[in-house]
Amino acid sequence: MSANFPHLIDLDNYPVESWNNIVNLAIDIKRHQHIYVGACSGKIMATLFFEPSTRTQMSFQSAMLRLGGGIIGFDNPATSSVAKGESIKDTTKIASSYSDIVVMRHFIEGSVKAAALTADCPVVNAGDGGHLHPTQTLTDLLTLKAEKGTLSGLTVGFCGDLKNGRTVHSLLKALSRYDNNKFVFISTDELKVPDYIKDIVTSSGKSFTEVNSLEDAIPSLDVLYMTRIQRERFGSAEEYEKQKNVFCLDSKKMELARKDMIVLHPLPRVDEIALSVDDDPRALYFKQANYGMYVRMSLILSVINRDIRSQPLLTGKELPDVKCRNPKCITALEPSLPHSFRNCNGVLECEFCDERITDRQCTLY
Amino acid sequence: MSANFPHLIDLDNYPVESWNNIVNLAIDIKRHQHIYVGACSGKIMATLFFEPSTRTQMSFQSAMLRLGGGIIGFDNPATSSVAKGESIKDTTKIASSYSDIVVMRHFIEGSVKAAALTADCPVVNAGDGGHLHPTQTLTDLLTLKAEKGTLSGLTVGFCGDLKNGRTVHSLLKALSRYDNNKFVFISTDELKVPDYIKDIVTSSGKSFTEVNSLEDAIPSLDVLYMTRIQRERFGSAEEYEKQKNVFCLDSKKMELARKDMIVLHPLPRVDEIALSVDDDPRALYFKQANYGMYVRMSLILSVINRDIRSQPLLTGKELPDVKCRNPKCITALEPSLPHSFRNCNGVLECEFCDERITDRQCTLY
Amino acid sequence: MSANFPHLIDLDNYPVESWNNIVNLAIDIKRHQHIYVGACSGKIMATLFFEPSTRTQMSFQSAMLRLGGGIIGFDNPATSSVAKGESIKDTTKIASSYSDIVVMRHFIEGSVKAAALTADCPVVNAGDGGHLHPTQTLTDLLTLKAEKGTLSGLTVGFCGDLKNGRTVHSLLKALSRYDNNKFVFISTDELKVPDYIKDIVTSSGKSFTEVNSLEDAIPSLDVLYMTRIQRERFGSAEEYEKQKNVFCLDSKKMELARKDMIVLHPLPRVDEIALSVDDDPRALYFKQANYGMYVRMSLILSVINRDIRSQPLLTGKELPDVKCRNPKCITALEPSLPHSFRNCNGVLECEFCDERITDRQCTLY
Repeated sequence: MSANFPHLIDLDNYPVESWNNIVNLAIDIKRHQHIYVGACSGKIMATLFFEPSTRTQMSFQSAMLRLGGGIIGFDNPATSSVAKGESIKDTTKIASSYSDIVVMRHFIEGSVKAAALTADCPVVNAGDGGHLHPTQTLTDLLTLKAEKGTLSGLTVGFCGDLKNGRTVHSLLKALSRYDNNKFVFISTDELKVPDYIKDIVTSSGKSFTEVNSLEDAIPSLDVLYMTRIQRERFGSAEEYEKQKNVFCLDSKKMELARKDMIVLHPLPRVDEIALSVDDDPRALYFKQANYGMYVRMSLILSVINRDIRSQPLLTGKELPDVKCRNPKCITALEPSLPHSFRNCNGVLECEFCDERITDRQCTLY
Repeated sequence: MSANFPHLIDLDNYPVESWNNIVNLAIDIKRHQHIYVGACSGKIMATLFFEPSTRTQMSFQSAMLRLGGGIIGFDNPATSSVAKGESIKDTTKIASSYSDIVVMRHFIEGSVKAAALTADCPVVNAGDGGHLHPTQTLTDLLTLKAEKGTLSGLTVGFCGDLKNGRTVHSLLKALSRYDNNKFVFISTDELKVPDYIKDIVTSSGKSFTEVNSLEDAIPSLDVLYMTRIQRERFGSAEEYEKQKNVFCLDSKKMELARKDMIVLHPLPRVDEIALSVDDDPRALYFKQANYGMYVRMSLILSVINRDIRSQPLLTGKELPDVKCRNPKCITALEPSLPHSFRNCNGVLECEFCDERITDRQCTLY
Repeated sequence: MSANFPHLIDLDNYPVESWNNIVNLAIDIKRHQHIYVGACSGKIMATLFFEPSTRTQMSFQSAMLRLGGGIIGFDNPATSSVAKGESIKDTTKIASSYSDIVVMRHFIEGSVKAAALTADCPVVNAGDGGHLHPTQTLTDLLTLKAEKGTLSGLTVGFCGDLKNGRTVHSLLKALSRYDNNKFVFISTDELKVPDYIKDIVTSSGKSFTEVNSLEDAIPSLDVLYMTRIQRERFGSAEEYEKQKNVFCLDSKKMELARKDMIVLHPLPRVDEIALSVDDDPRALYFKQANYGMYVRMSLILSVINRDIRSQPLLTGKELPDVKCRNPKCITALEPSLPHSFRNCNGVLECEFCDERITDRQCTLY
């Protein structure tokens, strides 16, 4: 099946050149904002937030307004037609017929791709469960490019919950596509980067080290990417209390860092960065959030102007007898969707949620 | 009492010529959209959704944005001033003083007319309980006119819950005003079209037949109008399981239909149309939803430009001693409203909710 | 600490001349609205309503739209990032980086000032708990100026709950700054104006009288400012039933008033003004709500054009060892805020919520 519109579901559907174009256009928009006023005049964006996310939604909305476009949508699942039992497909289909671009967030993995299959305009993934959040990754790339001047040759530390963090995994995969980057993974043993992500890093020819101490790691870093560790991830409350300081950034640890190291965080932040760090000029997480608006302006403009080319949404094979085993996958919820799988080194991979069926060889095609 | 503004509460308040003007303008807007960009520039629409309805609200909002206007409003009763005990009148009065047009949806019958009585700008009914939803009817008329080329001489089948469906009743009343239409009612015995609607059809000189099988009826139809049957409407779960397939449209039944029959549905759809029908070119329910945006553009423009003339809201007589017996009527909730009744062939009819007081002769005037 | 932006947290931070400028500009905007269309074109306002308030939010939104600007924001705390444990500071900081002006309402006293400390654009207080609501006061001043032609020499009656009404206190303080105003306080003994407000009135050289009967007071008034008495404020249900009529305005009491007396109410109104009064030409509370839109247009324009000068947010002294004792103060919630106090005639006054620490002499500075 082939998409008629330049949907953005997964960054991996596009070549790195497209990422660079979006990042570079964002830099130009930030510099010469007045040129882009009215660039989307008369266009409408629908923000369909089946799961609320104030910051992401406000970021997209301000981006569209700054380009002169209008906004419709909802952020409150309880007040949407979904409450009446309507399928994601129907809701999105109709909203897309009112709009020039749909921005969708949903708690079900693969749901945004499923919606894009029948949409009447381009669809942008603003987060589908714990799966993908490509505009966060674009935000991170823009921040690095604008603040470090390059996306190559960087030593980037990731600190916190590296096991469950979709943001971390996406950025790691993205930075692995650029030259000479090195990674330092700073976490507890329980919250390490999963093997399949390490495989991607390694097979791209990049190296990483794993450490247990932020204090030890920080002096070597160009970039420190902090993430939340949710209390629930620890074995016990005592474990949490014991370990949390090891992975929290404070002014004392900042003293050990380079003068030109920058601190990023996808936000919201809770306890993992002390408030005193906010005043440090190297603390760029709020600026990073602001870059998010510019990268979304760039993306919206590129999509509406068709500057990025439409890519097929499903490239694998339909295997009606095979079922994805991920209970959070959209295919578990909407049975009429094609059971479409990629052949990934002999292992079947669901084309909606990217779950691998590891106990079954891909002998089917 | 006479309205100062061209409110749209009930299509019946306007002559058929006005309906045709709105439909024809909508066709022109769809064809020459660029001409209408900015036609409502500087104007503000308030969407007051005391009861949430994502699709209707998004349809109105995209309509206003495409005309260049702005939008305020709410869709979440819990967050509105109503939660503080404010009357509908006060909330609407104030919102109308900020706006050029108010679009209101409420779960109480007659509430939109009540609000219009004291509003400071035109008020459009976007659904008042199970009572009226005139812009859905205009959407249906536009779809028929645009797709069949005419509103006359059509054989229209209505399938599903024909007893409780306000959409069906309104469209039936509307199509009875055009020449040579014929109707086929397809439902269970329990969910038949009520007698007072049949009376309207018959007295307009139109004919109808009643059948129990969609399969039998479908070959003769120009238009098939599907509606939801809510599970709760059936006597039992077994009854539901037994009957539901009879009234569900699938690809097999579509094979029996004419090549130029079209399928409509007010949406949301749940089980009553199989997903496989979506790919049939005769399945027009998504296109119908899209026509809804154009008919609302036409309506908003006509109201703001005063192209439709203001009509009196209450034309009957105030009878302080008579009370409407409909517990869902706005007059039961807001006692200061006039007890205003129409004389309908000797029977009193509440001017807010259209309930008839059948046990009392209209000897009062 | 000094603010970089012309925040409006508390009217008292600005000289009376600034109030007059805002009121006079509002009168001009109402008269010559077409001149101001597009005055904020390309600008974005974020309305951050941590506590819902439909009317205030719609008033700000329609104001911004009429000036040609765009709107982002939320009105539903449950759907905001706050639900994920994010601090007010972080949420506001990020929203302010997307916007040209932030309008914030919160249920915690002093929270808006706290947010302004680190915001990246001007912040307007749209109500912080029971503390301040400066744009309501500006609305009242505009209504008086436009309808009575002056803000001086007026006899103003305040009726209802005068103890807890933040609106009443603010307006009293404001009118005390103009010449020759006289006040009549009409309430039960339990709901009298608090002493510290009376002190402000007296020390400004104005006089007041206190009465128990609206009927007795009304003939002498130029302005009657009505407020809600919440049922819960009375000792018992019987007490409420007995007293409520004394303080409710109806057509009979209106007969005792002057021909040119005007009735105001901050709304929402529940029972304290009979619906029949609405048709009296002296009942101006709905018009007052409409003035609210114009005064907000004036304020937004003044802030965005920097026509009002930025004022320091904190002018007192940081006393780390002293804690504000108001449990609803933002400093109780966000411990990293400075413990900043004003010296008010020898008594310490919290710079966030204005609570006085009466049992401790200000010997600290």
